[in-house]
Amino acid sequence: MTAFEALDHLLGQRFSTSLAARRQNAGNEAHYPEALPDAVACPETAEEVAEIMRHCAAEGIPVTAFGTGTSLEGQHLAMKGGVSLDFSRMNKVLQINAEDMNVVVQPGVTRKQLNEELRASGLFFPLDPGADASLGGMAATRASGTTAVRYGTMRENVLALQAVMSDGSLIRTGTAARKSSAGYDLTHLLVGSEGTLGLITELTLKLHGLPEAVAAATCHFDSVAAAVDCVILTIQSGIPMARIELVDEMMVRGFNLHSGIGLPEKPHLFLEFHGGPGAVREQVAMFREIAEDAGAGGWKDAETTEERSALWSLRHGALPAIGALDPRPGRKTYSTDVCVPISRLAEAVSVAQAEARARGILATIVGHVGDGNFHCGMRFDPAAPAEVEAVLAFSGVLAETALRLGGTVSGEHGIGLGKQKYMAAEHGAALDWMRRVKTAFDPQAILNPGKLLPAND
Amino acid sequence: MTAFEALDHLLGQRFSTSLAARRQNAGNEAHYPEALPDAVACPETAEEVAEIMRHCAAEGIPVTAFGTGTSLEGQHLAMKGGVSLDFSRMNKVLQINAEDMNVVVQPGVTRKQLNEELRASGLFFPLDPGADASLGGMAATRASGTTAVRYGTMRENVLALQAVMSDGSLIRTGTAARKSSAGYDLTHLLVGSEGTLGLITELTLKLHGLPEAVAAATCHFDSVAAAVDCVILTIQSGIPMARIELVDEMMVRGFNLHSGIGLPEKPHLFLEFHGGPGAVREQVAMFREIAEDAGAGGWKDAETTEERSALWSLRHGALPAIGALDPRPGRKTYSTDVCVPISRLAEAVSVAQAEARARGILATIVGHVGDGNFHCGMRFDPAAPAEVEAVLAFSGVLAETALRLGGTVSGEHGIGLGKQKYMAAEHGAALDWMRRVKTAFDPQAILNPGKLLPAND
Ligand SMILES: Cc1cc2nc3c(=O)[nH]c(=O)nc-3n(C[C@H](O)[C@H](O)[C@H](O)COP(=O)(O)OP(=O)(O)OC[C@H]3O[C@@H](n4cnc5c(N)ncnc54)[C@H](O)[C@@H]3O)c2cc1C
Ligand SMILES: Cc1cc2nc3c(=O)[nH]c(=O)nc-3n(C[C@H](O)[C@H](O)[C@H](O)COP(=O)(O)OP(=O)(O)OC[C@H]3O[C@@H](n4cnc5c(N)ncnc54)[C@H](O)[C@@H]3O)c2cc1C
Repeated sequence: MTAFEALDHLLGQRFSTSLAARRQNAGNEAHYPEALPDAVACPETAEEVAEIMRHCAAEGIPVTAFGTGTSLEGQHLAMKGGVSLDFSRMNKVLQINAEDMNVVVQPGVTRKQLNEELRASGLFFPLDPGADASLGGMAATRASGTTAVRYGTMRENVLALQAVMSDGSLIRTGTAARKSSAGYDLTHLLVGSEGTLGLITELTLKLHGLPEAVAAATCHFDSVAAAVDCVILTIQSGIPMARIELVDEMMVRGFNLHSGIGLPEKPHLFLEFHGGPGAVREQVAMFREIAEDAGAGGWKDAETTEERSALWSLRHGALPAIGALDPRPGRKTYSTDVCVPISRLAEAVSVAQAEARARGILATIVGHVGDGNFHCGMRFDPAAPAEVEAVLAFSGVLAETALRLGGTVSGEHGIGLGKQKYMAAEHGAALDWMRRVKTAFDPQAILNPGKLLPAND
Repeated sequence: MTAFEALDHLLGQRFSTSLAARRQNAGNEAHYPEALPDAVACPETAEEVAEIMRHCAAEGIPVTAFGTGTSLEGQHLAMKGGVSLDFSRMNKVLQINAEDMNVVVQPGVTRKQLNEELRASGLFFPLDPGADASLGGMAATRASGTTAVRYGTMRENVLALQAVMSDGSLIRTGTAARKSSAGYDLTHLLVGSEGTLGLITELTLKLHGLPEAVAAATCHFDSVAAAVDCVILTIQSGIPMARIELVDEMMVRGFNLHSGIGLPEKPHLFLEFHGGPGAVREQVAMFREIAEDAGAGGWKDAETTEERSALWSLRHGALPAIGALDPRPGRKTYSTDVCVPISRLAEAVSVAQAEARARGILATIVGHVGDGNFHCGMRFDPAAPAEVEAVLAFSGVLAETALRLGGTVSGEHGIGLGKQKYMAAEHGAALDWMRRVKTAFDPQAILNPGKLLPAND
C-alpha cells in the first residue's frame, strides 16, 4: 500500500487528491503564485496527524500544515507538492481553565471562535492579527497584531504545545505552570517555526481578564512624524496602551474610498485603553496631553461597543482598502512588515515614505507602532516585471533600513517565501545554527520544505 | 602547543591550573560534593571566549561556564573536569538605551551592579533571585525570583543574546526590536540551557520604569492553606502584585532564630505593590479585603525604604536562616523547587507539609507563590546515608506531585545534576528532541557535560 492509499484508507472523505480540494489550499492573500499540493488531508485528532506523518515520512512525502491560509509570505503553500495538512477540522476548544486563566485548544480553532466560546468566562484571548486566523497558524508564524503592545505576541501567550514531529512521534512541550526551568524551551522553538519543525496539534494559551472598562478614540496629525513622536512619548511614559495604531494619509484615503467613512486625509492614530474605569479615564487624559502637545487634532471618541467594533473593523479592512486605491484588475497588494526599536521608529517610517515617493510606488503605511512595528502595503501588477522589481527593491530597502536601525525584517508576518533573502543579513552566523536545528528535527526536509531557511548554496 | 599552553599564552594571569583557583569554582551553595575543574579561565571579551572554545574543541576539553556559582542544582560544577570558564571579568554594562528601555550587558554583570548603574536612568531591572547572581547565569538557568509574578522571568526579559557556540563560532540571536517573526527563536533556546548549548557573551535585557510609588507589608494566617487561598484569590482578582511571598511557620522560626526579628510563628505573606500612588493605595485596599476575608491578621506596613529593604533582606536570608534551625556542623540545606498551576497550589503545598511531617524531615516552605512556585528547604546531614535518602525521596514525592498537578519539577532553580532523574517523567517523548538539539549544537558533548539531560542508557 502506498502512503496515499494508506491515507485514503485512514481518512476516507477527509483525504482528497481532487483538483478542487488541492486548489482550495493553493492560493494566498498575498501576491505569490498558486502552488498545488498533491493531496489534502483533514485529520480530526493528533493521532491521525501522527499517522499521516508516519506514512509520509516513510516515502519522503512533504507535509505542509494549513491553518486558514491567511499568512502573508506564502508560508502555507505546498511548494514541493505532497500533502497539505489542513487543520480546519481540529477546531475544538478542549478545556477552559478559568481559575488558571488558560485554555487548551486544537490548532484549527480560530481566534474569533475562541473568544466566542470564552464569552461566559469573563476572560479573553487578546491577540488580534486582523484576519480570523487559526491559533495553530498564529503560533507557527509567531503572530501578534493590534493588541500585542499590551498583551504580548504568541511568544508570550503560548504556555504549552502538543506536536507531531517529522518521524510521526507525538510530544508535549511546556506545562500549565506559568514558568519552568526544566530543560530546553521546545515550546518557543516551535512557536515561529512556520511548520518546518513540527505540526502543532494542541495549544495551551494564556488568557486575560476582560477589562472592566474600555475606551477607544481616534485623532489625527499634520505629519506622520508628529504621530510617531506622539507614539514614542506615549510608550516611554508607560501608559499601558491596549492598542495604538498608525494609519498614514494614503491609507486613510483607501478607507474613505473603500467604505466612504469620510475621514480627514491626514495621518491618524487609532487608540484603545483598557483598565478599571478610573484608570482608563486617567490613561486617556495622560495620552491626550501628550498627543495635543505633539499637535494632535480631531479627537473622536468611539463611545459605544458598536462604534468601537466599527473602528476596528475599519482598521482590519486595510487590505481591501489598499485595493480600492488602485482597483485595476489583476493588481495585487504586497504587505511588507518590519519592526525596529521604538526610538528609531520615526526614522524608519520616514525612510519608507520618502523611498515610496521617490520610486513612484503606491504604498500605505499602517502599523502596530507601539511595538515599533509597521507595514507597507504596496499595490502593483504581478504581470509587469518592472513593477514587481520596483516593489521588491523597495521592500529590500525597508528590510535593510530595519536592520540598520537595530530591528528585524519581520515583526509578525514571518519569513515564508518572501523574506528568506534577508535571513543571512539579519542572522549572520546564527543562520547556520538554525540550519542545525532544522536538520536535527527534520533530516528528510519534508516539513514545509522550501520555507523560512534560504536554500543552501 | 597544547590547548592549555595556548590558553596560558592567550590569557596570562587570567588562566590558572593552581589548586586554589580550581577550588574557588568547585564549591556550591547546595549539598553537591565539590567538583574540581582542571583549569580556570577568565576571559574579558567575547573574542577571547571564542578562542578558548576553539582551543578546547580542538582537544575535546569540556568547558563549563561559571557566573557567580549560586545555582542550586550544581549547574556550574565541572563534573568532567576541563575548563571552568569564569565570566567574572566580563562585567561591563555596555549600553543603557533609556529610550528603548533596554540595556546591553556583559554576562558577568550581577543584578545588583546593574541596578546600581541604572540608578540615574529612572529604569530598573526587576528580576530578583535573592542571590546577587550574574545575568549570564540567570539567563542560563532561566531564573526568576520574587518579582516574576509582575515582571516575568528571564524568559520574558531577555531580548537578544550574543553567544559562543561549541565550535568557537560567535553568533547573535534576536534584535533590540520588541518582537520578531524572523526565524527560529535561538534566544529562547539558549535561555535555560544551563551552558550546555552555548556560552552567553552579551545580553540585551528589557528594563522597566521605576514605579512612582511602592508599598510593602506583611501579614499572617493561621494556616498555610488560608495563606495560599488568599494568594489564589489575589492572583485571580487581577491585582498586579509586584511581590507575594509565602513564608511558612517553620521558616519564620528560622528567621527569628537567625536574626531575632521576633515575628509571630505563623505562616506569613510578604507583599509589595508598585504603581502610581493612587493605584498602589487601591491595590493595598483590594488586597487587604481579600486577605482579611481569608483570615489574615497582624498587618504591618513597611513604610520607609529602609523598612522595605530590611523586609526583603530578611526574605533573601532564607538559606542561612534554614541553617539556624539546625546548626549542627556538617549539615547542609537542599532547596528543592517546584511550580504548579495556581489553582493547584494549595494542594501541592499541603502535600509538601504533610509529607515532610510524616517523614520527620525538617523542611521550610517559602515561595514566589503568585506564580504557583514554591521551595522546600530541607536540612540534613550529607554524611548520613539514611538522611540523604529521606531528603531525596521527599524531593521525589514533591516532583511527582507537581507533575500530577500539571506543573513542572523546577520553576526556577533548573535541572543541573539533581533533577535529571525527573526529566523523562516531565517531558516524555519530548526528551528525545531535547537530545537532538544537544547533539546538533554540541556534537562532542563538551559544553557543561553531565548536566540537564540524563545520561542515555
Ligand atoms: C487582512 C490580514 C491582516 C493580517 N494582519 C496581521 C497582523 O496584524 N499580525 C500578524 O501577525 N499577522 C497578520 N496577518 C497574517 C496572518 O493572519 C498570520 O500570519 C496568521 O498567523 C496565519 O494564520 P493561519 O491560520 O492563516 O495560518 P496559515 O496561513 O494557514 O499558515 C501559516 C504558517 O503556519 C503553518 N501552520 C499552520 N497551522 C499549523 C499547525 N497546526 N502546526 C504547525 N504549523 C502550522 C503553515 O504551514 C504555515 O507555514 C494578516 C493577514 C491578513 C490576510
Ligand atoms: C540564597 C539563594 C537564593 C536563591 N533564590 C533564587 C530565586 O529566588 N530564583 C531563582 O531563579 N534562583 C535562585 N537561586 C539560584 C541562583 O541564584 C540562580 O540559579 C542564578 O541564576 C545563578 O546565577 P549564577 O551567576 O550564580 O550562575 P552559576 O551558578 O555560576 O551558573 C549557573 C548555570 O549557568 C551557566 N552559566 C553561567 N554563566 C553563563 C554564561 N555566561 N553563558 C552560558 N552559561 C552560563 C553555568 O554553566 C551553570 O550551568 C538562589 C540561590 C541562592 C544561593
